[in-house]
Amino acid sequence: MQYRQFLTDAVRASLQYEAPGGWIPAAPPACIRLHSGYPAPALVPVDHLARTMADVLERERDLPLQYLGSPSAARLRGCIEHLMSGRGIDVSHDATLVTSGSAEAIDLISRTCLDSASVVVVESPTYMEALETFHNYTDQVLCIPVDGQGLRTDLFEHLLVHRQSRQLPLPKLLYTIPSFHNPTGITLSLERRNHLLQLARRFRFLIVEDDAYGELYFEKRPTTLKELDLEGNVLYLGSLSKVIAPGLRIGWVTGPSTLISTFDRFKKDLGHPLVEAVVARYLALGDWNQRMTHLRGAYRRRRDVLQGALAQYMPGDVTWVNPEGGYFTWLHVPGVNTLSMLPRALAAGVSYVAGEHFCVNPKDGAQNLRLSFSYVDEEDLVRGVQLLSDVIRATRSADGSAASGRL
Amino acid sequence: MQYRQFLTDAVRASLQYEAPGGWIPAAPPACIRLHSGYPAPALVPVDHLARTMADVLERERDLPLQYLGSPSAARLRGCIEHLMSGRGIDVSHDATLVTSGSAEAIDLISRTCLDSASVVVVESPTYMEALETFHNYTDQVLCIPVDGQGLRTDLFEHLLVHRQSRQLPLPKLLYTIPSFHNPTGITLSLERRNHLLQLARRFRFLIVEDDAYGELYFEKRPTTLKELDLEGNVLYLGSLSKVIAPGLRIGWVTGPSTLISTFDRFKKDLGHPLVEAVVARYLALGDWNQRMTHLRGAYRRRRDVLQGALAQYMPGDVTWVNPEGGYFTWLHVPGVNTLSMLPRALAAGVSYVAGEHFCVNPKDGAQNLRLSFSYVDEEDLVRGVQLLSDVIRATRSADGSAASGRL
Repeated sequence: MQYRQFLTDAVRASLQYEAPGGWIPAAPPACIRLHSGYPAPALVPVDHLARTMADVLERERDLPLQYLGSPSAARLRGCIEHLMSGRGIDVSHDATLVTSGSAEAIDLISRTCLDSASVVVVESPTYMEALETFHNYTDQVLCIPVDGQGLRTDLFEHLLVHRQSRQLPLPKLLYTIPSFHNPTGITLSLERRNHLLQLARRFRFLIVEDDAYGELYFEKRPTTLKELDLEGNVLYLGSLSKVIAPGLRIGWVTGPSTLISTFDRFKKDLGHPLVEAVVARYLALGDWNQRMTHLRGAYRRRRDVLQGALAQYMPGDVTWVNPEGGYFTWLHVPGVNTLSMLPRALAAGVSYVAGEHFCVNPKDGAQNLRLSFSYVDEEDLVRGVQLLSDVIRATRSADGSAASGRL
Repeated sequence: MQYRQFLTDAVRASLQYEAPGGWIPAAPPACIRLHSGYPAPALVPVDHLARTMADVLERERDLPLQYLGSPSAARLRGCIEHLMSGRGIDVSHDATLVTSGSAEAIDLISRTCLDSASVVVVESPTYMEALETFHNYTDQVLCIPVDGQGLRTDLFEHLLVHRQSRQLPLPKLLYTIPSFHNPTGITLSLERRNHLLQLARRFRFLIVEDDAYGELYFEKRPTTLKELDLEGNVLYLGSLSKVIAPGLRIGWVTGPSTLISTFDRFKKDLGHPLVEAVVARYLALGDWNQRMTHLRGAYRRRRDVLQGALAQYMPGDVTWVNPEGGYFTWLHVPGVNTLSMLPRALAAGVSYVAGEHFCVNPKDGAQNLRLSFSYVDEEDLVRGVQLLSDVIRATRSADGSAASGRL
C-alpha cells in the first residue's frame, strides 16, 4: 500500500528536510564527545534525584503514578514561576505551561501558529532542532545572521521594511536564543534587545525567547527579553535540561494566557506526573542558588580550559567565540568543509557538530563547527582540541591547494 | 494585543470544541470516584517501581538522565515487541514507536494524517480524549453506533458505499477500541472484526486499533484486529497505563514503517529516558504473566461486585453492559439527562462521567453514563451504586412527569 497517501500535503512537504537526529555524529565509544550538548555527568545530581524519587513515592504512593493527583506535581508550576521571578520576570500577567523540555514548547507554538502560509525568522546559525520543527510546518523559514553582538537586528529591520513595502507576509514569529546562543555561544547586546522589542511592537510579531542557558552566566546575568517586554510580544521558553538534567524533560513556556491555553489544548502527552513530582520536590527543598553558583563556576572553568587549548593548538587563522555563559563555542575554519572533515575527526577520536546543520542555507555554516565544553572533563577538552587541530591541519594538507597555502 | 491573530485558521476552528478535561467532574475529596479510569491504587506496583528506579540510577548513573545513552531505555522497544508477540501479533513487518501514552500516539497520527479536508470515523460513543484530539484537526468526525457486538460494521459499510457513490471523500481513519471499549465495556465480535478489515481493504482506510485494555480479559483473550490484518491496514496502539500505571506515560504505536517514521519526525517531546529505562527493566525482570493473571482476577472481582450492586439497587428500567474485561461499564438511564444529574450525584458523594462527553452528537449520550470499576475498592463500588441509584430516583421524582411515572 502507498502509505504516503494518508499523510497531509503539509506533512509530505516536510519530508524533504533531513530527519531528526541527522546532525548527530556517529561517534565511536572512545571518542571525545565535543558534539554533546549534555551537562557534565558529574554535575547531574543523580543521588539527590534518586533520594527525591524514593521520598516522593514513599509519601505519595500511587498518586504520582496516576494521571492526576500528586500534590508535589501540582506544585511544579509554582516552583517554576518562582525561578522566573529570580530571573527578574514578572509572571503576574502571563500564564505558564510545563512542557516536555523546550523542544515540546517550540513544537506547540509551531503547531498552533504556523501553517504553510506562515513566515518564521531564525538566527543564522540557530538551534538545529528548532529549525527542524519549524520546517515541519512551513518552508518559509527566513534567517538573519548573527555577529559578535548577536542577531543583526539592523538587517532584520531591513527585511521587515522590505517585506512590508512589497506587501509580502510579515513573520509571525522570531525565534532567538539571546543568551549564550546555541550553537555560537554569543549573547545579544542590550541595545539590540531593545531594538528587537521595538521591531516586534512595530511589526506585530511574537518573539520566541529560548532561554535554556540563561542561568549559566560566567560574569553577569543578561537581561532577558521577557523582562523588557512591556506589551506582551514575548513567549519565554525555560528549561531544566541544562541546569538539572535533560532526561527529566522539564521545560516551560510563559506568555499571554490566550496562547498558553491553546498550547495546552494541543499538548497531548498529558504531562509526566512522576518526574514532575520529583522535580517540584527537588526545587522546593534544594538550594537552587548554591547549585547555580556551583554550575557557573564549573562550566566557567571548562570554558577557560577550552579557550586556552584553542589558543594553544589551533592553526592561526581559525577563529572562535569566547562565550560568557552556556555550553558552546563556534569555530570558523577557513577553507575547510566541516561536514566533509567529520569522518576524519571521528576516526581520530574527537567529535563536533558540523556547522551546516544549524543553517537554513547549509553553505552558510559549511566552514564552521560547534564545540561543546559542557560534557567532557577538562583533560579531555584539551586532548580533544589537540586532536581536532591535528585533523584540521591534516585535512588542509590532504586537500593541498589554496587552503594549505594559507597556513 | 489580539493573540488569536497568531493562530492558524485550523487551530482557531478547533477552539469551538470543549477544552481538554471538560469532562472531568468536580468531585469533592470524599466522593466515591466512579468516574476515574485509573488503576486501583493497590494494583499499582509502587514499591517495585521505586526499587527499579533506584536500581537503574545506581547502575546507569547519569545516563537515563541525559537525552540518550541509557542501555535500559534502549531496550524498551524490544520489551514492548515481546509483549506484542504475546498478544499474537507478528511485529516483523512493522515498526514500533514508543509514545507518551496512547494519547500521544493518537495525536501523532492525527497531526500527520488529518487536515480540515480529512474525514475520520469513530464509534458512538467513543473515548472522549480521542474525539478531542481529532477535533483539533478536522470537524469532519463521523460516528457509527455501537451495539452489544460493538461497532455496527453494517452501518459503516452503508456509510462508505453512500459516500463513494456520491463521490464524497472517504474516511482516512477509523478509530476503534475493539476490546473492552471505553466507555461502554463492549467487545467487537470476531465476525465484525473480519468485516471491518474487509472494509478497510476495499475502501483503503487505516484502522487505528486502540488496545489499551486488551490484556485485561476476564474470560477469553479477544483476537486483535492487528492479528487479522494481512494487508497492513491497522495501526495498533498499546499502552501500559492500565496494566502498570498511567503516570509512567508509556504507550506505543505499531504499523507500517513509512508512517511510523513520520510520526517519529513529529514527536517533539524527545522521549522520556528515565521512565523508559525503569519500565524496560521492570518488564525485563518482572513476571509479566503472573502480574496479568493477578490483575485479571482483581478486576474481574470488581466487575462482579459492580454488576451485583447494579442488579440489586438500580431502578428496573436502567440497563447496563456486562463487560468481559477492562475498566468500564455503560448505563442507560431512560428519561434522565445524566449531565444535568451530575451535580446532584456529586453532592450525594458519587461521581461518573456523563455520556454526552463521549459522543460526536452529544444528545446521543444524554441518557447514558460511564462507570469505572477499576479505581475504587469493592465496598465503595457497592456504596457508590447505592448512592447513584438513589440519585437517579430522586432526579426522576424532582423532574416529576413522565420519567417518574415510569418507575
